[in-house]
Parts: sequence; C-alpha cells; structure tokens
Amino acid sequence: MRYKVVVAYQGSSYQGWQTQHQNNSVQEEIEAVLTTIHKCKIEIVASGRTDTKVHAKGQVFHFDSILDISEQGIKNALNALLSKQIRIQSVQRVSDDFHARFQVASKRYDYFVTSDVDNPFVVDFMCRESYELDVELMKESAALLLGTHDFTSFTSSRIDDRKSRVKTITRLDLSRHNDVVHMVFEGSGFLRYMVRMIAQTLIEVGKHKLIKQDVKNMLEAKSKHACKYKAEPNGLYLVSVTYS
Amino acid sequence: MRYKVVVAYQGSSYQGWQTQHQNNSVQEEIEAVLTTIHKCKIEIVASGRTDTKVHAKGQVFHFDSILDISEQGIKNALNALLSKQIRIQSVQRVSDDFHARFQVASKRYDYFVTSDVDNPFVVDFMCRESYELDVELMKESAALLLGTHDFTSFTSSRIDDRKSRVKTITRLDLSRHNDVVHMVFEGSGFLRYMVRMIAQTLIEVGKHKLIKQDVKNMLEAKSKHACKYKAEPNGLYLVSVTYS
Repeated sequence: MRYKVVVAYQGSSYQGWQTQHQNNSVQEEIEAVLTTIHKCKIEIVASGRTDTKVHAKGQVFHFDSILDISEQGIKNALNALLSKQIRIQSVQRVSDDFHARFQVASKRYDYFVTSDVDNPFVVDFMCRESYELDVELMKESAALLLGTHDFTSFTSSRIDDRKSRVKTITRLDLSRHNDVVHMVFEGSGFLRYMVRMIAQTLIEVGKHKLIKQDVKNMLEAKSKHACKYKAEPNGLYLVSVTYS
Repeated sequence: MRYKVVVAYQGSSYQGWQTQHQNNSVQEEIEAVLTTIHKCKIEIVASGRTDTKVHAKGQVFHFDSILDISEQGIKNALNALLSKQIRIQSVQRVSDDFHARFQVASKRYDYFVTSDVDNPFVVDFMCRESYELDVELMKESAALLLGTHDFTSFTSSRIDDRKSRVKTITRLDLSRHNDVVHMVFEGSGFLRYMVRMIAQTLIEVGKHKLIKQDVKNMLEAKSKHACKYKAEPNGLYLVSVTYS
C-alpha cells in the first residue's frame, strides 16, 4: 500500500529536509521512525527539499508499507514517536502510481518579514527588517516576475545545467498586517533558492535600495551573477503542494 | 547613575534567569554584555527569577553605571551585542534608591494552553493539551484562589521556611481564543512554582480530573503534599512588573 502524508515542521531545529552527511534532517527522522514501526528499512519520497531552517506547513511525501494499519493509526504512531517539531497533519492511502515529486502540479510558499525587531519570540519564524517596507513599490516589481520566465538570475549557481530554468509563477501577492509583510508565491515549480532570492530582491525594493527597472534588468540578464540577494531561511514556509 | 531596564526573552534557549553552575542564563548573558560595554564587572538585579524555559515579555532589572550614555544608546548597544532571543524593550534613568526587587508592587504572568497539538510552531511557546478544556469550570475554581491566602499547597518544598506563604492574587482571568486557553495572573508576589502549580490544577479541573471541592481542599490543606500538579514552563510568560 502507498500512503500520501502531509507533514508540518519547524525548520529551525533541522538542517533541512534532506542532509547528505549529517544526521539531523527531517527526512532522516521520519524514515527512522517509519523503520522502527515497520521493523524494516522504509524510504520516503518528498515533493522536494527544503533548505536548512526553512519551515513547512504542508510538505508532502509518500512511502510504501506492507503493514495493514489505518490512516489514523499511522498518523498517531508517527506523532507519538516523532519529536514535537515535526507533526504529521494527515495520512491518506493512495494508488500505487501516485508519486509525491513527479506529479506535483503546484506549490505554495509564504515568506514573512517583520519590522518588530525588539520581539524575541519571532526570531526563528520571520525575517527581521527594521526598515518600514514600501509594499506598494514591492507589488509593482512583483508584477514583473509573474508569469512564465527564464529564472536563471534567481537561482544558485549550483543548479544542474541540463535543467530548464523556465518556470511559471501564477501568484505573487504582497500584503501588510501591522508589523508584518506577507508574501505568497505560487507556481508550478521553483528553482533552488528562487523564492528566497526573489523575496530579498523585493525587500530591497521595499527599502528603496532597488527600483523596478533593476528587477527587470536582473530577470532579463538570465545570469547567475545578476542577483546577489537571498532572504534568510527562517521567514520561509512551504505551505502546500497540489497534485494533478 | 542607576538604570531600570525592561527586557523580553524567549526562555526556550536558556536555563532560566539565573543559574548557579552553568553558563546559559539570561542574567549571565546580559551581565557579560554590560561588562564588555563598561570594561568593568557589572552586576544586575532583577524583579525575581524565572525558571528554565519560562519566557518574559517584561522582566525588569536595574544596574549602576559610571558611563554617561543616553537611555537609547544603552538600549542600542545591548541589543547589538545580545543574542536575538533576548531583546531590551526600554531603558530608563531612575533615582539611586530604585530597587528592581524590593520595590515590586505587582507582577503579571500569562499562561497559554493550546489544543492544537498537531502544530509544530507553538511547541516552545504554549503548553499542549489534547483535551478541550472546560473554561467555565476552570473559572469557578479560579475564583476560590483569588484574594489573600496561605499558598503553601501551591509552592515547591524547596521554599525557605522563614518566608511567609501568604500572598494576594488580585486577578485570575481565564478566556478561550479558538484553540488557546489564556490565563492571566496578577498579584503582589508569587511563590516559587506557584503560577505553574495553580495553572496545572486549573487545567486538571478543565479536563474534569478535579472538581472545585478538590481545589478548595488543596488550598485549605496548606501542605506541600496537597498539590502534585505543575504546568510545563514553556507556556508561562512574565508579562510585566509594576513598582510602587
């Protein structure tokens, strides 16, 4: 049986979804617990990775099980054994051809910036920026990035050269709620660091350090040297993944 | 010059306000930074201690300085050097006879309990309780504790026997906001663990594990064996200290 699982995690305690050489990733902790439950090695496949300190409200993974346990039973067993910073939101039995990575239709990421820099309780959960960001200016630049573009300028140089850097952003909303600026990104897929690089570029616009034309030039440059900005990971949340 | 300082801190990273043998208390970090700024040993005096993992929104301390720095200058210097989990809220020059501990008129503590046990983002900030607490029942028992009583039953056995256990609670409010039960305690002073022991006793009432008469019996027993309950520290906040 294949199961689709939605999981939320507080990224501050983890070195990302997947780590190579260390033993402190969300994936490794979940696999260890599933292995304990099944008494045999279980591997999981997620919609994609999240970076160190990035949070998730709705990361999705799948795994195969030979055990006959109810969906609620799996959820309860996982939440009993996982640390409290990782909480399973739902477990659903799916057909064997469901794939958590290959069938992603769209993803939503949220980014939060607060100007309440004297608040010690948001340190792990929002980016702190003492400037009062000009959200209206940020919206004008965000509009340039909406739609289908080659986002080579907004990704890390580590990207695999064979992969397409053409992606579609279907939603890029900005709003202010008291001290907090909230950005919503939705799209069919995002390149490595793409959300954080766009977020920080828009923050620089909000601080009057960049203008709309600078953002246009960056996008059109299609160069890994065009954008030197990358927002802190602690303000980023993978909110949801939808499937076709 | 004597300065009165209001400080907020996220207690999850610290072993309380004051530690005896370890180097990870809020007080030690602030003293180390003030010592760096002054180039001589500075000691601070707080309104009282907070336990390991307990938070503060408005802890108060005082210290004496021979430097002629503005209030805002001291605040900025401290916040530049302290970790982000400790944030100075305000600095005020006061008369030399101000004392942060001896002149306390009242303190306010808040306690938060959430039933949203699948939320990984509140782990350090609220007590988690999967029961839906009956707040109306909790209010009835809270009313018994309001006013002046000998609170021997609601403190730890470590208390100094010479000290009076008679305290006055001037406010004990309970309210629910969606998944969260919020308790507000105000009084002239609180014994060691008193807020947490009362909070957990009221939680047990809200879970129908105790009734009002049990709470009355506990209070009247004036015995350190009467109450075996103590709420987790992560839900507790020292909100404010007022001075006469």
